[in-house]
Amino acid sequence: MTNQQRKSFGSDNHSGAHPLVLDAMVAANAGDVTSYGADPLTERVTRQLCDAFGAAGAFLVLGGTAANVLGLSVMLQPWEGAICAESAHVNDDECGAAERIVGSKLLAVPTADGKLTPDLIATRLTGRGKLRRTQPRAVVITQATEMGTCYSLGELRAIGEFCRAEDLLLYIDGARLANSAAFLGCTLAEVSEYADVLSFGATKNGAVGTEALIVRNADLLAAAPYHRMQLLQAASKIRFMAAQFDALLTDELWLSNARQANAMAARLADSVSDVPGLRLAYPVQANSVFAVLPREQAERLHEDWNFHVWAGLDDQEIVVRWMVSFDTSESDVDEFAAAIRATAGAVSQPAS
Amino acid sequence: MTNQQRKSFGSDNHSGAHPLVLDAMVAANAGDVTSYGADPLTERVTRQLCDAFGAAGAFLVLGGTAANVLGLSVMLQPWEGAICAESAHVNDDECGAAERIVGSKLLAVPTADGKLTPDLIATRLTGRGKLRRTQPRAVVITQATEMGTCYSLGELRAIGEFCRAEDLLLYIDGARLANSAAFLGCTLAEVSEYADVLSFGATKNGAVGTEALIVRNADLLAAAPYHRMQLLQAASKIRFMAAQFDALLTDELWLSNARQANAMAARLADSVSDVPGLRLAYPVQANSVFAVLPREQAERLHEDWNFHVWAGLDDQEIVVRWMVSFDTSESDVDEFAAAIRATAGAVSQPAS
Amino acid sequence: MTNQQRKSFGSDNHSGAHPLVLDAMVAANAGDVTSYGADPLTERVTRQLCDAFGAAGAFLVLGGTAANVLGLSVMLQPWEGAICAESAHVNDDECGAAERIVGSKLLAVPTADGKLTPDLIATRLTGRGKLRRTQPRAVVITQATEMGTCYSLGELRAIGEFCRAEDLLLYIDGARLANSAAFLGCTLAEVSEYADVLSFGATKNGAVGTEALIVRNADLLAAAPYHRMQLLQAASKIRFMAAQFDALLTDELWLSNARQANAMAARLADSVSDVPGLRLAYPVQANSVFAVLPREQAERLHEDWNFHVWAGLDDQEIVVRWMVSFDTSESDVDEFAAAIRATAGAVSQPAS
Amino acid sequence: MTNQQRKSFGSDNHSGAHPLVLDAMVAANAGDVTSYGADPLTERVTRQLCDAFGAAGAFLVLGGTAANVLGLSVMLQPWEGAICAESAHVNDDECGAAERIVGSKLLAVPTADGKLTPDLIATRLTGRGKLRRTQPRAVVITQATEMGTCYSLGELRAIGEFCRAEDLLLYIDGARLANSAAFLGCTLAEVSEYADVLSFGATKNGAVGTEALIVRNADLLAAAPYHRMQLLQAASKIRFMAAQFDALLTDELWLSNARQANAMAARLADSVSDVPGLRLAYPVQANSVFAVLPREQAERLHEDWNFHVWAGLDDQEIVVRWMVSFDTSESDVDEFAAAIRATAGAVSQPAS
Repeated sequence: MTNQQRKSFGSDNHSGAHPLVLDAMVAANAGDVTSYGADPLTERVTRQLCDAFGAAGAFLVLGGTAANVLGLSVMLQPWEGAICAESAHVNDDECGAAERIVGSKLLAVPTADGKLTPDLIATRLTGRGKLRRTQPRAVVITQATEMGTCYSLGELRAIGEFCRAEDLLLYIDGARLANSAAFLGCTLAEVSEYADVLSFGATKNGAVGTEALIVRNADLLAAAPYHRMQLLQAASKIRFMAAQFDALLTDELWLSNARQANAMAARLADSVSDVPGLRLAYPVQANSVFAVLPREQAERLHEDWNFHVWAGLDDQEIVVRWMVSFDTSESDVDEFAAAIRATAGAVSQPAS
Repeated sequence: MTNQQRKSFGSDNHSGAHPLVLDAMVAANAGDVTSYGADPLTERVTRQLCDAFGAAGAFLVLGGTAANVLGLSVMLQPWEGAICAESAHVNDDECGAAERIVGSKLLAVPTADGKLTPDLIATRLTGRGKLRRTQPRAVVITQATEMGTCYSLGELRAIGEFCRAEDLLLYIDGARLANSAAFLGCTLAEVSEYADVLSFGATKNGAVGTEALIVRNADLLAAAPYHRMQLLQAASKIRFMAAQFDALLTDELWLSNARQANAMAARLADSVSDVPGLRLAYPVQANSVFAVLPREQAERLHEDWNFHVWAGLDDQEIVVRWMVSFDTSESDVDEFAAAIRATAGAVSQPAS
Repeated sequence: MTNQQRKSFGSDNHSGAHPLVLDAMVAANAGDVTSYGADPLTERVTRQLCDAFGAAGAFLVLGGTAANVLGLSVMLQPWEGAICAESAHVNDDECGAAERIVGSKLLAVPTADGKLTPDLIATRLTGRGKLRRTQPRAVVITQATEMGTCYSLGELRAIGEFCRAEDLLLYIDGARLANSAAFLGCTLAEVSEYADVLSFGATKNGAVGTEALIVRNADLLAAAPYHRMQLLQAASKIRFMAAQFDALLTDELWLSNARQANAMAARLADSVSDVPGLRLAYPVQANSVFAVLPREQAERLHEDWNFHVWAGLDDQEIVVRWMVSFDTSESDVDEFAAAIRATAGAVSQPAS
Repeated sequence: MTNQQRKSFGSDNHSGAHPLVLDAMVAANAGDVTSYGADPLTERVTRQLCDAFGAAGAFLVLGGTAANVLGLSVMLQPWEGAICAESAHVNDDECGAAERIVGSKLLAVPTADGKLTPDLIATRLTGRGKLRRTQPRAVVITQATEMGTCYSLGELRAIGEFCRAEDLLLYIDGARLANSAAFLGCTLAEVSEYADVLSFGATKNGAVGTEALIVRNADLLAAAPYHRMQLLQAASKIRFMAAQFDALLTDELWLSNARQANAMAARLADSVSDVPGLRLAYPVQANSVFAVLPREQAERLHEDWNFHVWAGLDDQEIVVRWMVSFDTSESDVDEFAAAIRATAGAVSQPAS
């Protein structure tokens, strides 16, 4: 895919950056500063992140995979494992980086919608104390999930209290945490209340390329800087990462970006809900729409539009992911929705 | 150290970015593109880098440590080691990342000036074929070295031919490769002719934060993308890294930046060469000046200027590193040189 | 459990060693020999193992987990994974050693009876060529399986040909390979014909403590000695490991031991097949009997006999594993079978 | 080298096992016991080892490299390193296993005789608190050293107190700890008083093949069993390892074996001390004799006798290692000494 007129619905990282983010990077360029984090901008942004999350430390890294693997490194010894959904990004979409870098086994659980529950987590606790079994030590949840769903505050509390009762650390993969907070109408502190460690994604929400690893559990803080260094995430001119967060934290740009993306996903879902032969695969809560539609229609639509074929259901139907971004406009959505409707009309109806 | 009036001589990563680099990032922001490297800008920059180095592949990463560890990963199995100078950045300044991520032992050799020779390399070849010894498989040289010296083309050829004769792969840590090419007056292809893999640094030469791993040996290419992914270096909006290289490759900005830095280092060295009690520790070839001076003078100078105390020689003298950058000006140098001269005049002369 | 009168049905590693194995170790004690494998006995046994398996190399190690992890190390790069059954020992019973030491993700597949098929393997091949997915490179099967079942020669051929067609390496975890060869009535070469690498277990079949990693694929040979050293499996007085294999290979002691164990498992299964409320969970092919029986009966039986509770089925029934060994006698089996029958008679019958 | 008449002076692992060790293994063969360490013999031997060393735990493993790497795993996080002599077995003779398995960098120090001192250790403490440097966390000493020298109790105390003052853990590679205790005339508790973790070697002192990792620092105990499992050192029929220690601990066989070896080394050194052209390279304190002698003589001697050429000094002289074992007899020594004397007489005298 090349630079193009049509908006991509392929991923929220197909967008560029929000102009204010680039402005902040340009502004951060003035003068010399100490490298590797001792500059005033990085120090201020770090404090702001800690304040926002009630955290002991915050560490800027390159991307979401880096944040996840750093987070697991901070929590796990090599014989300890993290319980996660099979569909979790760290399990299914990071090329086994966690296993290689942390050395730990992931204890994956099949889920219906990408969401863990205390009952699902409990299924992976059977081997505790047995030397021959990876010792469960952490739980990884994704908020918003890879399926575009969000844990409610009640669901987070249930998992959080279960983790504390079971002496499990809780990690939130927050590559789209902003979208979940926007959906839930809560603060960053509220959505992360039960997490020991979490990532706060910026890249998909309008940044050029950075995420923050937020360490809320102070016992885990001391090791984090060394892990970040060894995990190849120490940026010398880190002020340019800090500038990106600075822009997103100013006037809650992170929240307005997330709200815009969520609203456009909702608009798209609404627009196509009555298209014949199409149904939603999951509730639309964050910034993606998963739809089931006829294969033939998906192929037709794919000729002109960028989106992700998620999985084949059967010979006739497939699941597609339409992802919207902070810079997706109403007209982008309306144009795409019209194309969906048009291709639905064009294809032969499957025999019932 | 805070944003300040006075130019830092502490490191070439205390500078911000060249304005053209930021301009290129802003320009790259237009429109949606596929992520993770399939965008037109990244593809073009990758081709340009391959052309410039006669390489099979080029991979953008976050920083110099990332490039080094990725390079070692591409070359080594875990029972194989890399021969390097004790002072090499990968050995002494990367928190053991190579050992942790690659799993390999570094075979470090003491050197007088940070430069390896075939004879020095040969001292580490004794254990070949012995199961109980790490098998030497690669040689790591730094160009320009951590001491600001450069391998001549003849020295590079001698090492390169030795490596080929001994079936050793050659890696060049090129965090300051531009400065060495500028000093040698040669092309990037010439300075890397014997390397199987090398890094081409951009961050210290005017970029915001990126380096390129250049794979010249085609046999090593296939594994590189997977290693990059596992080593947490796959950037989703990689177009913004590519834009930085695009700016540096346009009209040879990389070369003019490096020439400016080198020229300012030479100017500084010339300016202080006759300061009483001060002598140069190494030849000034790239963009740093290592000087031996009285401790008392160094302390006085440190009150107003940012530079690095490298090592203590004895009770009276220490070695300091003054590093200049692409954006260091003649007036910066002249102001600093005057301060050096002034502090020399002010301190009590050591008894001879 | 302490040394006791009653035979253990807990595991085939609860037995001691066959007397001929200890005799061979005593005989090997005479004189001085070079260490680490250059002694005549180790060289001869290695040749014999290579001959028996049509292999390029054979490497003695401490135990089954060591053989498995060494085998995976020889086959996989860290971004490559091995497809295995969820119930595979390497996945479920080795404390994540493979992930830590090899760095690779295991691609586990749920199975009905511990046996993979080409169709099951194919479910894990979807991510090939996608950078974000662990690349499937090897298949691990256990022969005999953890459930005491055996792949037939036809099933092995089907998997082997599938692996070759799909460019997958095949590894056989042969901790109980002898029992499978005894069941199938085939040679060691026949049972391993399609394997690139396999383990040949001795410990559970009468040895003191050693297994052999058999490398049939000559392309994988060169790295194996270095991996063995780094994986802490190089024994200095390795002649005493070789002596154990020498005993087992002499007059096919490995086969008569395996036949005895298999026969006693069959005898046990036959003896209890008509016990009311009891049914077999899997076909009894190697040296273990998996039975479903009432919880109350299992608890009563556990008071006097050592065996493994495998899994709970529901409130009333559980699955138990009764494992017999090379030194289990007919009277051991008969005594145990009588106890099973007696406890069945004693417990209250579950309501139908 | 093959089984032969002449005693090997090549290594103390060229010997077989002491007959009482094999007797104990045969005795341990009776009856069924639980595997992996819950058997009565292993439990008793573990208690005896803990008592002898004042330790919190003891873990039997396959060999010396395994014990060392397990010990480092118990002490170090991956960004932490161990300070050791360059000549330390863990640094120079284990194929980089520590780097691969632990992930940590070793901080090696050149030494004159294989022995560290507080001053030498202090040279490696400069990087503390600097994120870019491996953090020194442990000190590894070898007792007796690879050069056959022993730390005195005073030297051990000096190092131990230095370590405590500097918050460093102390590990003793005790592959030949018995020989050092025999030389010093002290107990195992005394020789290990300052160690947090140590290995107690059995293989070179008459065992078939096992070593014990002794954990004296109770804070390090909990992780050790999981590390042992992941490091492929969990033996199912571990009773046969325990039996070896049982034999060595009974009536202090470990001590009489060590005394015999030490006495024969002293006898050899005495016997050849006046051989023309030969001099000792190090004090003979444990069970090895390092001698400097003319190359021509060494080659002549090598024709009939097995020993290790350690290093070449110059064109004319080399250093050889003559190692004696628990089962080396006076007549073995006398025969070898006569051969040394005879070859000295036969070779041409080097011009002075």
